[in-house]
Amino acid sequence: MRRVDGRPFDALRKVSITTGFQSFAEGSVLIELGRTRVCCSVTLLEKVPSFLKGQGSGWVTAEYSMLPRSTLTRSPRDSTQGKISGRSHEIQRLIGRALRSVTDLTELGEHSLMVDCDVLQADGGTRTASITGAYVALYQALQTMANMGIISSIPLNGAVAATSVGFVRGNMLLDLCYEEDFNAEVDFNVAMTDKGDFVELQGTGESKPFSRENLDELLNLAKRGISELLSAQQEAINKLKFN
Amino acid sequence: MRRVDGRPFDALRKVSITTGFQSFAEGSVLIELGRTRVCCSVTLLEKVPSFLKGQGSGWVTAEYSMLPRSTLTRSPRDSTQGKISGRSHEIQRLIGRALRSVTDLTELGEHSLMVDCDVLQADGGTRTASITGAYVALYQALQTMANMGIISSIPLNGAVAATSVGFVRGNMLLDLCYEEDFNAEVDFNVAMTDKGDFVELQGTGESKPFSRENLDELLNLAKRGISELLSAQQEAINKLKFN
Amino acid sequence: MRRVDGRPFDALRKVSITTGFQSFAEGSVLIELGRTRVCCSVTLLEKVPSFLKGQGSGWVTAEYSMLPRSTLTRSPRDSTQGKISGRSHEIQRLIGRALRSVTDLTELGEHSLMVDCDVLQADGGTRTASITGAYVALYQALQTMANMGIISSIPLNGAVAATSVGFVRGNMLLDLCYEEDFNAEVDFNVAMTDKGDFVELQGTGESKPFSRENLDELLNLAKRGISELLSAQQEAINKLKFN
Amino acid sequence: MRRVDGRPFDALRKVSITTGFQSFAEGSVLIELGRTRVCCSVTLLEKVPSFLKGQGSGWVTAEYSMLPRSTLTRSPRDSTQGKISGRSHEIQRLIGRALRSVTDLTELGEHSLMVDCDVLQADGGTRTASITGAYVALYQALQTMANMGIISSIPLNGAVAATSVGFVRGNMLLDLCYEEDFNAEVDFNVAMTDKGDFVELQGTGESKPFSRENLDELLNLAKRGISELLSAQQEAINKLKFN
Amino acid sequence: MRRVDGRPFDALRKVSITTGFQSFAEGSVLIELGRTRVCCSVTLLEKVPSFLKGQGSGWVTAEYSMLPRSTLTRSPRDSTQGKISGRSHEIQRLIGRALRSVTDLTELGEHSLMVDCDVLQADGGTRTASITGAYVALYQALQTMANMGIISSIPLNGAVAATSVGFVRGNMLLDLCYEEDFNAEVDFNVAMTDKGDFVELQGTGESKPFSRENLDELLNLAKRGISELLSAQQEAINKLKFN
Amino acid sequence: MRRVDGRPFDALRKVSITTGFQSFAEGSVLIELGRTRVCCSVTLLEKVPSFLKGQGSGWVTAEYSMLPRSTLTRSPRDSTQGKISGRSHEIQRLIGRALRSVTDLTELGEHSLMVDCDVLQADGGTRTASITGAYVALYQALQTMANMGIISSIPLNGAVAATSVGFVRGNMLLDLCYEEDFNAEVDFNVAMTDKGDFVELQGTGESKPFSRENLDELLNLAKRGISELLSAQQEAINKLKFN
Repeated sequence: MRRVDGRPFDALRKVSITTGFQSFAEGSVLIELGRTRVCCSVTLLEKVPSFLKGQGSGWVTAEYSMLPRSTLTRSPRDSTQGKISGRSHEIQRLIGRALRSVTDLTELGEHSLMVDCDVLQADGGTRTASITGAYVALYQALQTMANMGIISSIPLNGAVAATSVGFVRGNMLLDLCYEEDFNAEVDFNVAMTDKGDFVELQGTGESKPFSRENLDELLNLAKRGISELLSAQQEAINKLKFN
Repeated sequence: MRRVDGRPFDALRKVSITTGFQSFAEGSVLIELGRTRVCCSVTLLEKVPSFLKGQGSGWVTAEYSMLPRSTLTRSPRDSTQGKISGRSHEIQRLIGRALRSVTDLTELGEHSLMVDCDVLQADGGTRTASITGAYVALYQALQTMANMGIISSIPLNGAVAATSVGFVRGNMLLDLCYEEDFNAEVDFNVAMTDKGDFVELQGTGESKPFSRENLDELLNLAKRGISELLSAQQEAINKLKFN
Repeated sequence: MRRVDGRPFDALRKVSITTGFQSFAEGSVLIELGRTRVCCSVTLLEKVPSFLKGQGSGWVTAEYSMLPRSTLTRSPRDSTQGKISGRSHEIQRLIGRALRSVTDLTELGEHSLMVDCDVLQADGGTRTASITGAYVALYQALQTMANMGIISSIPLNGAVAATSVGFVRGNMLLDLCYEEDFNAEVDFNVAMTDKGDFVELQGTGESKPFSRENLDELLNLAKRGISELLSAQQEAINKLKFN
Repeated sequence: MRRVDGRPFDALRKVSITTGFQSFAEGSVLIELGRTRVCCSVTLLEKVPSFLKGQGSGWVTAEYSMLPRSTLTRSPRDSTQGKISGRSHEIQRLIGRALRSVTDLTELGEHSLMVDCDVLQADGGTRTASITGAYVALYQALQTMANMGIISSIPLNGAVAATSVGFVRGNMLLDLCYEEDFNAEVDFNVAMTDKGDFVELQGTGESKPFSRENLDELLNLAKRGISELLSAQQEAINKLKFN
Repeated sequence: MRRVDGRPFDALRKVSITTGFQSFAEGSVLIELGRTRVCCSVTLLEKVPSFLKGQGSGWVTAEYSMLPRSTLTRSPRDSTQGKISGRSHEIQRLIGRALRSVTDLTELGEHSLMVDCDVLQADGGTRTASITGAYVALYQALQTMANMGIISSIPLNGAVAATSVGFVRGNMLLDLCYEEDFNAEVDFNVAMTDKGDFVELQGTGESKPFSRENLDELLNLAKRGISELLSAQQEAINKLKFN
Repeated sequence: MRRVDGRPFDALRKVSITTGFQSFAEGSVLIELGRTRVCCSVTLLEKVPSFLKGQGSGWVTAEYSMLPRSTLTRSPRDSTQGKISGRSHEIQRLIGRALRSVTDLTELGEHSLMVDCDVLQADGGTRTASITGAYVALYQALQTMANMGIISSIPLNGAVAATSVGFVRGNMLLDLCYEEDFNAEVDFNVAMTDKGDFVELQGTGESKPFSRENLDELLNLAKRGISELLSAQQEAINKLKFN
């Protein structure tokens, strides 16, 4: 099968990670995967959720939204609907969990890091791009905190990156664009650490259940893509300059 | 490790599925898994979502909620907050996908089946219990439709049931109760068909990433639990009496 | 006139009060009146509304809701509407007032008792069933508080129970089921104490005004029904076992 | 007992009903009872609620609200809270029922009459003043409809007016002002027709249950007050000039 | 061009300012401009917005709303929409700014003055009438504060009043009524102090851009109208009696 | 006075207008004014607001929002507040009016153009930058419509651009950045056409009323800035390539 954009089945789209995108933020990244573009910014807040108060530990949480015309046809804003959509809720909970899985929250003191993932353009894979980009923005924000003397080292146990894999008309594909995702029988989002362990695995076979063998192949493919993304993250981090 | 309620690591809690719980509904089930109790009811609606209008196909969707005092401490109602919580959103989307994966929507005509999962008591595993119970309520509703002459056969490609597995203090456990779930390092929800294929797989290692080997063991354990649940479903369905 | 379910005009439907329905609650009751079933649970909260702060007195309040498929046709959830319906508001204010009328709030200290009345099945009379059931749940919660040493005796001045009466096609009836209520010209909800005094009286003759004589007859009939309900409450309370 | 404003126990406050208050409305009245002032306006709408569509019948409904500084201390607007308060809901449902009880809805054709009761100043009795004033505004709106040729006669079966009665520190009082209402042990709102029949009876003994004898006395007192209000309504209606 | 109500192009409608309209408020005015009638009431609150806390300074803010049938056809209430309309938001921000421009906030201590402008009848110019009326209500409230000993003098740097001017079918007009406003090519709201300085200028040429010359003429006309309004304000203030 | 960024009092910040920013939109622009960056995208909708239905005319409207970390400190999302802020409402109404003032709506047929202005970074002047950028995006969208054959020519009567002017510590300044705007005594937003006529004029002297002479100087300065912005717009439009 020829893919929409001519890629081999096991190729990522072109990845680009630009740091410092929103210059007022403690950490900010523009991540691009082909036509998908997400702004990931991290804000340091001097408070923690009520369930953590007085425990000396910190928190990392996320909000996710799409600009109305990031999509092929315009999507109404959550604010005009007066509420956050179910899909946004699901995604922002996923991003928060993935980032917390590699963060040593007890080293943050009673600070929260609020991660805003705003999709400027959506061509599939916005939730996994958000995780991948947000990790770099989180790193930058932690480095800012270290520079401010709030923390003495970067409290990360490793890196985390994510991608999607799936079956489209019987073909296994890496990093699905919107059109592929729309037609997928099986759709998987995988977040892994740089040690090769999973932190999130969400697979759905809404239009066709999938076997244990399918699962194994998909996870192998995801792992290959994620290792490339981990390299792109590392490269962006290496370029960050603080004194 | 001794489990809170004395079960072996690979045992389900006591399962009970009572049909006809809400007698006005087209299909209705009370499912109990130990102290967890969920009312799953299915309503036939003579309409479909706008994206399906005029296509002759039907739809299955779900709503999930908890009674305020289903939980150890009281949870405020979504209605007093003026919105559905992120967690409820995530769960009801999961239930809908799992049920649609075994339903031939094109056989429904332009009808929707609305599945209401209301948790009467919550002791862990409410989302997987919802899927397991809702499948039986869906079966009953489809049989009602067949009896009414709306459909000529039950348009299900198979059964679907779900359970949770996870690691708690290093121990692999099946069907986590609330206390176990609260302390789990790794938490997995698995929905499978009676053919042994997956329809949903959601795993998170928020407090500890998990390896490929862990994943394999967890899925084996989940499969064992789900096959018991599939039997309990079949037994409940066999007892349904229509003329 | 023959009633829908064959009862004499002055007969209640079969009453059943089961305590301990939601086992995590301080007090919890399932009350059944024929096909009407309401779960009434009471939660002890260590706070009072702002208008009572610092006065040493407590509070009793209620919330009322219906499961979507408790009704003949499905009713949308308040939470998907983003607000509580006018009818729910009116009913929960009524329940709160009825319970406070027999409670010595000054004996509670600065504690609130939140009463959740959730209708599992609705066949008329859910608001009066809620009051009748909630009284028993309140009693159980107060006994729990006494057992915990928060209060030294049960601060109730008496029992309260409620029923509906009305005129349907010119016939006076006790304890209207849904179909009767729907067709009633005059519809009355009456809450009385075990001393025979009224605490709430709400009568409406929307489709036909009613005379002073009608009122007198209706109140006599209500009193008869309520005395049976007071017995059923007492019986349920007698079975409560605490050590 | 001396009343706050020196009235005898069985005297109404000074009543004044001014028609044509909002000049754009089909019917509009400013009713004043002492310091209580309510603007009641009726709008003719060319539609009916969905449950009445295609049945050829009309509808009368009401909305009730208070200006923020109608009260002694400022009350926040419902709109800044994003929802209608429970109290407003309860009151507007009461006003709607009272007016429908004297209206022959089948004579309206598929038209609705929306009654807006906006409290300019609140010194107790705003809900009963709303009913009393709204009846006159409704009459005026129906006369407007008759003048427009939409209906051929005024489809009212009688007049309806309402007042409050209660016990305050053991004394029975008619037409309670705010301070009296605040201190009442028993509080009754009564709506009656000009034939002396009841259309609404809402009594609550939240701080002290009341006996059958109390009820009888209260209803006698209410009847006396209402007959004066019915005269004031008739006088206002007689002054309406249409050509 | 003959104006709808026969006025010359440069004449205000009949102005009337009645103080003490809502008698519980610290300051309250009914302002009438022809058929436009607005109730402006001021409430003293013992708190300031969070951005002012601890700074010893006070605040003046406003809320604006219309009674549903103040308009030719009924406008739904903001509260039934669950939110304040964009237009109301814009107007209440304007009123607040205009009043703050003449108030010495540092003299208020940590008190807020909440100005409620509620339109009883709307025939054009409600926002400028609100500013003109609210100034008098504010003056009365400040005098109340002085009488209570909270402030030692009236902390106003001057008076502020406002009117509208515009071009309607090529004619320049002062104080547009609804019909004129609806047909205006250019629409200006101007708020000025008694020293002849501007505090707010909002002009829009949505249906026809306007030249610098047009602007100059409009401002001259507005100034003439505002000086009459300033006199009417002064007259109302002179009649206020405090001891 | 030395300005924060060293500019002369009458200089704009560096302007950059990039077309095609959101590639799925009918028209899309990224406008940058110094550190202020706004994404303006235009969507063609095949419907008009209800007040225009059946009249053959079209509509142009706008929505405005800020990314949470576009600002120095994070601003919560409108969607988590459940409503659009008053400031956003005011700004989006302004943008819509400015664009409609140069558009011949009757030439659009029954189509709407929805303009989304999303602020990526906010350093003052976001509302005027939105108008200036949105005009170019609107032009591009109309050209797209012409290319699709929906309209035969670009129905614009002229160009519109906007800037801010004001007094800061007594100094008159053009194109205020955030810090200047925050300290301004007088703050003006001016939108003008390429013919030199005004379409919007919004000036406020909240902290210091301003004289007629001040106004004249400010308008001269604004005109100078706007003519530069009109050139930048024209340049961007010239580069648009369609076939």
